[in-house]
Amino acid sequence: MSILIRNGTVIYGENFDVVKADVLIEGNRIVEVKRRINEGADVVIDAAGRVVSPGFVNLHTHSPMGLFRGLADDLPLMDWLQKHIWPREAKLTPEYIKVGAYLGALEMIRSGTTTFLDMYFHMDKVAEVVLESGLRGYLSYGMIDLGDPDKTERELREALREMKAIEGLNSERISFVFGPHAPYTCSIALLKEVRRLAAEHSKLITIHVSETMAEIGQITERYGKSPVVLLDEIGFLGSDVIIAHGVWLDSRDVQILARNGVTVAHNPASNMKLASGVMPLQKLLNAGVNVGLGTDGSASNNNLDMLEEMKLAALLHKVHNLDPTVADARTVFRMATLNGAKALRLNAGVIKEGYLADIAVINFNKPHLRPVNNVISHIVYSANGNDVETTIVNGKILMLDGEVLTLNEEKILSEAEKTIERLS
Amino acid sequence: MSILIRNGTVIYGENFDVVKADVLIEGNRIVEVKRRINEGADVVIDAAGRVVSPGFVNLHTHSPMGLFRGLADDLPLMDWLQKHIWPREAKLTPEYIKVGAYLGALEMIRSGTTTFLDMYFHMDKVAEVVLESGLRGYLSYGMIDLGDPDKTERELREALREMKAIEGLNSERISFVFGPHAPYTCSIALLKEVRRLAAEHSKLITIHVSETMAEIGQITERYGKSPVVLLDEIGFLGSDVIIAHGVWLDSRDVQILARNGVTVAHNPASNMKLASGVMPLQKLLNAGVNVGLGTDGSASNNNLDMLEEMKLAALLHKVHNLDPTVADARTVFRMATLNGAKALRLNAGVIKEGYLADIAVINFNKPHLRPVNNVISHIVYSANGNDVETTIVNGKILMLDGEVLTLNEEKILSEAEKTIERLS
Repeated sequence: MSILIRNGTVIYGENFDVVKADVLIEGNRIVEVKRRINEGADVVIDAAGRVVSPGFVNLHTHSPMGLFRGLADDLPLMDWLQKHIWPREAKLTPEYIKVGAYLGALEMIRSGTTTFLDMYFHMDKVAEVVLESGLRGYLSYGMIDLGDPDKTERELREALREMKAIEGLNSERISFVFGPHAPYTCSIALLKEVRRLAAEHSKLITIHVSETMAEIGQITERYGKSPVVLLDEIGFLGSDVIIAHGVWLDSRDVQILARNGVTVAHNPASNMKLASGVMPLQKLLNAGVNVGLGTDGSASNNNLDMLEEMKLAALLHKVHNLDPTVADARTVFRMATLNGAKALRLNAGVIKEGYLADIAVINFNKPHLRPVNNVISHIVYSANGNDVETTIVNGKILMLDGEVLTLNEEKILSEAEKTIERLS
Repeated sequence: MSILIRNGTVIYGENFDVVKADVLIEGNRIVEVKRRINEGADVVIDAAGRVVSPGFVNLHTHSPMGLFRGLADDLPLMDWLQKHIWPREAKLTPEYIKVGAYLGALEMIRSGTTTFLDMYFHMDKVAEVVLESGLRGYLSYGMIDLGDPDKTERELREALREMKAIEGLNSERISFVFGPHAPYTCSIALLKEVRRLAAEHSKLITIHVSETMAEIGQITERYGKSPVVLLDEIGFLGSDVIIAHGVWLDSRDVQILARNGVTVAHNPASNMKLASGVMPLQKLLNAGVNVGLGTDGSASNNNLDMLEEMKLAALLHKVHNLDPTVADARTVFRMATLNGAKALRLNAGVIKEGYLADIAVINFNKPHLRPVNNVISHIVYSANGNDVETTIVNGKILMLDGEVLTLNEEKILSEAEKTIERLS
């Protein structure tokens, strides 16, 4: 199968150069990018007036949580979790989670996200949705043992069960990732065993770290050190670890993350909405830490729109530092594409010969994206997920001209409504 | 002319109750809101799966600046103004400004804004666009005399000329507003004369106040007091004054604004992008100050999307105060609708019998707006301007099912491109 995207404005290469070009895809790869490609292709997409962008990599989310969108806003994190989210999550069945995953997949396809790193439960069900939707999914089962050795055992068993189920799908688009929830919800024993298993099975690890001041207080009280120092001392950190949030990091923490090649998944909307705080983006970037971008779950955002997330990231750090030059458009665009792919060891996030064909085509024939003075600026500061018109993953078209081809949208929206009624 | 909006979910009344209802419009007013209205109407709009919301009131913008969108980002305010914006503005002709105003009008109609308070030059041209577009415009000519008495005279003359031209259009949708630019760019003589003229002609006044720390420094050095104290002492303030920004306000300033019934137009995106700072929203609200919402110009935002602006407002104040309960969804929604209308002394911003028919119909048949757990939350936290499908102002349909009826979209987009080429 080959696809030719013609007449578009292409964001090309690792430096995101904006060029007029055609893009030829063969199989799951980009094979040629140049002006006027004269070869034929199975599908030809006319991208006149459109921008051909690398697809977005959502580096931290809980995709089924769209079900809970808007159910509890404007609340402190612990109220939100304990009174609203956890009681509903306790009622979640694998089938309900699958409904939520469908909703999340639909939202991601519609807003140009091509790859996501997920943490939730019953990830074998989420994997079935990823398989069907055509997205690229990195799926972690969120382990929580709260120091109970029986629970440690059970959580590890469940993780390995889900790993096997996911590997059984045998899809190059779907990878299992180890997902211990956080240092404050996981025992050292669990964290150490996860570290061992990840190395043994060559899997990535993702974990929430230093999200709130309360967490820092708890961990410091329990262990006498920061979460990052704790993880470093038990040998947990490495270039295969992606920590989510990293809001409350001191200079020593930043150095440790840099030294270990850890990636940080930044979630500005969630950190703002839950009032968790502002992550030290400049310190991290200056130290050479790879920083990607995530939306977190839709219950704390409240959507999975990576275009909106880029704007939030840029604006948050400018005002927080009282410096308009930080978190410039290109830096943030890189976080949302290439940096995310790098963290996942994925040859994507860039439009260039040899890269995976993960692409979002954005319609610029809209008043808020004209005049086309600066393509990257418009994507970061002015566009939103609804401007994405066509989404391609692994050389397959998931949405074409606003029509999702791989999923039954009407059915998914109606199932989502029914499910939340049953959960209330 | 009558319009019946059927089967929608309506955000009803001053308390924004969410109800299933039909809405009947006759002439320019809402005349009935209830379940199953059986009367006929000239136009029937089926709003099943849609939310019928008050249209948004953009309380501070420079609508023609869409031309400069993305031309200069990630820069300090003074660099941005002096090296990029002012040199281009110097080349602006009335015709170019009209092109920019068309682009802005199109963007506002598309994103559900029904009323805007504008400050720019050649507002008689902007008024022609407002007349044609069907929007409701409050238009101020931005006066700057920099203390030069000749300039004071010329600026006042130009303001009065534009006032006459705008009044000559004789449209109930278009009002002239006095717009001295700011205390740091206007002489006391100009400010005093504006105050007198506004009272004489029963016009509102809008002015930038306390936007940056630099401004506070300048005014304090020049006058030995804060901009707000200065304006209070010369008798400038009143309930007919709308100050834009109000970022750097101390407790005394807040009390003065409250005592005088001044409205503050909050511009979170612009204040974040230019790194101006964070306005003391909680202090203002607690003191009883009326606070509306604005996008500022598209060169510092970079769009006119009031839905995006609501999310930014809510998230900014939560993280800034490290308190997720502040700037809750309803408070922010009220700022973007009723509070803006109140400032403009406009009987709008609410869907209820007797109010002006200024309405935005938002399509909720989208994955990021489902399940419909909370309508106001979804509009503030998850929707964006592209979700608006139908826009009605003064009982007239400006956009129906995504098609703008009053303006030639293709022509406007193409003129905008040509104009910016000529300005570069």
